[in-house]
Amino acid sequence: MELQGLIPFRLHTSNLQMAETPKIRFGFIGCAGIARRVSRAVALAPNAVLHAVGSRSIDKARAFAAANGFPAAAKVYGSYEAVLDDPEVDAVYLPLPTSLHVRWAVLAASKKKHVLLEKPVALNVAEFDEIIAACESNGVQLMDGTMWMHHPRTSKMKEFLSDVNRFGQLRSIHSNFTFRASADFLENDIRVKPDLDALGALGDEGWYCLRAILWAANYELPKTVIASRNPECNQVGVILACGATLYWEDGKAATFYCSFLSNTSTDITALGTKGTLHVHDFVLPYEEKEASFYAATELDVDEAVTKWVIQPRKHIIETDIPQEALMVNELARLVADIKFKKAKPEKKWPTISRKTQLVVDAVKASIDRGFEPVQIQE
Amino acid sequence: MELQGLIPFRLHTSNLQMAETPKIRFGFIGCAGIARRVSRAVALAPNAVLHAVGSRSIDKARAFAAANGFPAAAKVYGSYEAVLDDPEVDAVYLPLPTSLHVRWAVLAASKKKHVLLEKPVALNVAEFDEIIAACESNGVQLMDGTMWMHHPRTSKMKEFLSDVNRFGQLRSIHSNFTFRASADFLENDIRVKPDLDALGALGDEGWYCLRAILWAANYELPKTVIASRNPECNQVGVILACGATLYWEDGKAATFYCSFLSNTSTDITALGTKGTLHVHDFVLPYEEKEASFYAATELDVDEAVTKWVIQPRKHIIETDIPQEALMVNELARLVADIKFKKAKPEKKWPTISRKTQLVVDAVKASIDRGFEPVQIQE
Repeated sequence: MELQGLIPFRLHTSNLQMAETPKIRFGFIGCAGIARRVSRAVALAPNAVLHAVGSRSIDKARAFAAANGFPAAAKVYGSYEAVLDDPEVDAVYLPLPTSLHVRWAVLAASKKKHVLLEKPVALNVAEFDEIIAACESNGVQLMDGTMWMHHPRTSKMKEFLSDVNRFGQLRSIHSNFTFRASADFLENDIRVKPDLDALGALGDEGWYCLRAILWAANYELPKTVIASRNPECNQVGVILACGATLYWEDGKAATFYCSFLSNTSTDITALGTKGTLHVHDFVLPYEEKEASFYAATELDVDEAVTKWVIQPRKHIIETDIPQEALMVNELARLVADIKFKKAKPEKKWPTISRKTQLVVDAVKASIDRGFEPVQIQE
Repeated sequence: MELQGLIPFRLHTSNLQMAETPKIRFGFIGCAGIARRVSRAVALAPNAVLHAVGSRSIDKARAFAAANGFPAAAKVYGSYEAVLDDPEVDAVYLPLPTSLHVRWAVLAASKKKHVLLEKPVALNVAEFDEIIAACESNGVQLMDGTMWMHHPRTSKMKEFLSDVNRFGQLRSIHSNFTFRASADFLENDIRVKPDLDALGALGDEGWYCLRAILWAANYELPKTVIASRNPECNQVGVILACGATLYWEDGKAATFYCSFLSNTSTDITALGTKGTLHVHDFVLPYEEKEASFYAATELDVDEAVTKWVIQPRKHIIETDIPQEALMVNELARLVADIKFKKAKPEKKWPTISRKTQLVVDAVKASIDRGFEPVQIQE
């Protein structure tokens, strides 16, 4: 009998490529709640530095800089434009409401700033294509803020899913991301406002599920998406909970569910012909220094069908550096390569952002069309 | 911070109601593979005894009795009818192919035998209604062979799901049951034969998922069922893999997936407004003597969103007696009450069997009608 095993893997700071070049200087466009976490991430990343923050209120920017570890020399601005006009800013972090992404990301690119863009990247793929075009024509790197992509657990899980002997062919995926929003959130948060974050829970949470599904499917787009018939919306039509089924040409399918109205869940269940993978904290690991997942290959029961002779194994991955700092580190690495080594921007990141947005759009379109099947075309 | 806790609960043999009355005598109609496990269960149940086995071949019946712990005094018959005609048989176990259930269950009831019927209980609810009618008119108990219903873990999980403070209102359920059938199974097993088990994986595995979903929903039937668009069938049209989404009037929904073509999985994920439940071995616990599930209430992350301050708790339930023996024990208890105490048959068991079959039928109908929504009427 194969016992449940703990298989440790460690990522230490010393494994990261250390900055051989000057640190990449980040400017923050706005002081949203999530910006606190990303400012900590920039401070933790060995190749990045907090350089500037701009808000429509200079007092708010000043308070944010003081509270979030910006160095004394950091610049504090009373407008977003001023951050973009600071010639020392290499990259900007954009945590603004989704409806403002296209305007400020395009402007940032036009000022030759590399862009770390919060998700959902845009209200729809047409808007995002404007952002991509601006970044490409200005030679700047674009990356979205999906932090879990950068955790070493994610690549370890991918190794398992890619192993034809341990996992085989992917047949079915289920992912959920839910949390129970407070009454204040449901009344006042930008994520329930049609003029700010019109995609609601689909953009805020469904984004993660759809990214997880695409990630598991090697970013092969599904052919057809059909929304579930029970979306919940607030009085002004913003999605508070929804789900969908996604179909690929080879017969595999995925389901997801996201909600502002249920207790926290953040699961991926992937079923392959030879293996299964379960993870319950994929968006944010339970602990900052380690994360786990369960993998199983050719599970079986004993001949008398009284117990399992092979059980899933828990894999533990340790990391000195939280996933959001690894995200900043990866962006800063790409920016440094462009700035100091004449490298080209890495297309992988905007490509997977765009695919995720395409599927978000398809789910929304299916809901809007009365749960009709929506075909996805790249 | 609330640490992951292990909360043990123990069910010992001594907790079971011991037989104050003579043991209930079981006759087996057929020697299918699953009958080996149920014969062990009858031997383990304190209030039941292996009394007879019948097969179309008396040699097969004799070999089965010898190999499966039947007492020396047990009867061995060369036909199914002979078991039904044995006046000492109180209850029969029916592991025959689904297409034979209606004939043999109705005949058993007409001979005043109580019936333990393998799942799926019938090819469709119309057939099952014939079985129910026969059992009711003859005053015999009817129960299906869904073993996990009888594990003490199941009632502990139900306590959690029923707790408005710990779980709140159920909003979303996902269940899967898959295993990777061998080439021999896919060629020769009765579960891939249209004349024997025409419901294929839907009847064999989907049955468990749909029962789990109904169980979590307090057996409230969904209003609408829509099959997923990627069922896989063999060359003679028997389902090898399928799924569906189920909708209730209050907005909650469920998804399930079953397959003979993926590695083993057997999950329930239930999301409530206040709590979440995960179990990964609901059909058959990893270990015979203990079983676990994960429950969580008002999960939350720290203010900086770097880790979780409340995490799911692992609950462990120990049992001296495997779930299949508890199933036999429960049926024998009901039969003894009828036989010795003039009790009426317990309607709960055929009622939930029928509801499960209704949803199985709706999934099949949705597949047959090109994935149209199918309304369920009780």
